[in-house]
Amino acid sequence: MTLVMAKVAASTIKLPGEGKELLAKYAEVYELADVGEAELPNILSRVNVLLCWCGGEFNLTKWIRAMPNLEVIQTFSAGVDHLPYAQIPSNIRIFSNAGAYSLPVAEHTWSLILTLAKGVHSRLMDRDRYLNDPAYSPRQLTGKSLLVLGTGGIGTEVARIGKAAFNMRTMGVNRSGRPAAYFDETYPVSRLREVLPRANVMVIALPLTKHTRGLIGEAELNLLPEDAIVVNVARGDIVKEDDLYRVLTVRRGLRYGTDVFWDYGSGESLNPRTGLLNLPNFLGTPHIAGGAQPEVARRAVLMAVENTVRYLRGERPLNEVDRGDYV
Amino acid sequence: MTLVMAKVAASTIKLPGEGKELLAKYAEVYELADVGEAELPNILSRVNVLLCWCGGEFNLTKWIRAMPNLEVIQTFSAGVDHLPYAQIPSNIRIFSNAGAYSLPVAEHTWSLILTLAKGVHSRLMDRDRYLNDPAYSPRQLTGKSLLVLGTGGIGTEVARIGKAAFNMRTMGVNRSGRPAAYFDETYPVSRLREVLPRANVMVIALPLTKHTRGLIGEAELNLLPEDAIVVNVARGDIVKEDDLYRVLTVRRGLRYGTDVFWDYGSGESLNPRTGLLNLPNFLGTPHIAGGAQPEVARRAVLMAVENTVRYLRGERPLNEVDRGDYV
Repeated sequence: MTLVMAKVAASTIKLPGEGKELLAKYAEVYELADVGEAELPNILSRVNVLLCWCGGEFNLTKWIRAMPNLEVIQTFSAGVDHLPYAQIPSNIRIFSNAGAYSLPVAEHTWSLILTLAKGVHSRLMDRDRYLNDPAYSPRQLTGKSLLVLGTGGIGTEVARIGKAAFNMRTMGVNRSGRPAAYFDETYPVSRLREVLPRANVMVIALPLTKHTRGLIGEAELNLLPEDAIVVNVARGDIVKEDDLYRVLTVRRGLRYGTDVFWDYGSGESLNPRTGLLNLPNFLGTPHIAGGAQPEVARRAVLMAVENTVRYLRGERPLNEVDRGDYV
Repeated sequence: MTLVMAKVAASTIKLPGEGKELLAKYAEVYELADVGEAELPNILSRVNVLLCWCGGEFNLTKWIRAMPNLEVIQTFSAGVDHLPYAQIPSNIRIFSNAGAYSLPVAEHTWSLILTLAKGVHSRLMDRDRYLNDPAYSPRQLTGKSLLVLGTGGIGTEVARIGKAAFNMRTMGVNRSGRPAAYFDETYPVSRLREVLPRANVMVIALPLTKHTRGLIGEAELNLLPEDAIVVNVARGDIVKEDDLYRVLTVRRGLRYGTDVFWDYGSGESLNPRTGLLNLPNFLGTPHIAGGAQPEVARRAVLMAVENTVRYLRGERPLNEVDRGDYV
């Protein structure tokens, strides 16, 4: 008879009831939000699997050394650009929650695209001004070209909607240029500049890695058609802020919508350093497309739990992070 | 040998080159915008077919008696609620341009729906206020129910996009309740009140007739779910303005978007009498979804010409207007 010790799983947040129940079938479960500071080191010393929003409310850099038995980090977020990779021992496997926000973020993406395409952001009731201002005049989408940077969960869903709703020609960019569902054409990121001139709409849905930081600057923006629409639902720092400001100031017909902003060193700031928020061809929402919505977050947390359960059952979890992309 | 006299066709506006050429194969063509006031009566006296924006720039009421040979009126507009029916002799057939604006107006409809669903109209960068205000907090569309009043060109296209893009359940309302493409369920207008409680999104895409004027009032609006979204791309007067204002003031979570406004006796006014424009849950665009866009208008004019050609060739034109709906 073999004695199998149950694994210990800790979540930085309180889990929804059904998530906690599911996880408890395969591990001893702790919710760290309920644990006092005094008791925390004892629990962390036994933790094998950590489920976390590893940003604000749980300081991973501070606590990582208190977890000598840690095997796996499962994030609740889809992006993992904010993890303190230098502090995380290399034997610890990291799994992201990529895909958990695809449907709501794709809907939000289309909301920004359509708002900008039709000039609804103008709030003008003066018809002549509305129709004659290149920042606002309505544009048709049907039959146009849609370029999506990133062919993962969000990018695929954005492309699917573009084809299904507006019969758009879809072009995708990913690392290798491998084909992807709902994309008529795909290109490796090295050929980005070739496809930019054909993009009536460009959506940025790439993870922020060392390869994608600053990928879109003045040169790239200026390769887009005069009346292109750009929407960023990934991370602000994929686009160079100063370049963007300069280009939008000169090219009033280029319209830029974003749910994500720049990190000036202490996490994403919703106050851009430049005057972007005052430009007529800039439209921002304060990072509310995904997990900021309680209903969306709840579902995403359950998906993270399910992925953790894959690990605990000895199956292959989804979305293993390649640290080489970040350090 | 039979001598066939060519018909005389007159357009109130200058036609695009290809439209004029096509029409000239079947009729002697006049563009009234080019004709001096002195010469006008002579030409009108011979006109058999009139293509018109019968609103502002050509006063049909004034000139109708100057056209004793008139057989057909073909409008460039899709709606024909503004025609002076009492002055038009009953032997004259009237054809509308229904369907000519379906694609752009459906795109605009989805722009208003998605702007309202995601709260992009808030322009707030304060995340907490954004997420907690019932006028702005983001709502998911995928899998929800879409009710469309009117199953014509625009309504059908709106429903198609709802199904294809967001997997919505589509319910249509038309006069008889007859089935229509892209609608999962259809109901006669007499059963409207039964379906309102299930409509997460309601789109108004009906012609304004004596049957639909004031169709949506306080009682109908209050049957909608607490967090419903209503978009009107048909005519303002299908909705009772005072009722709408009252309901939106009380129910901050009900969001209303419109491209069309009320007619206080001298054509549509873009300045509502009530304080609608200042409400957080009201979003207006100044009737720019369709023919106000030059590219859209050009295409619509060609479709009107094609329909006129059907008549001139002895074929059956589309969209014959039943005057009984208007008088």
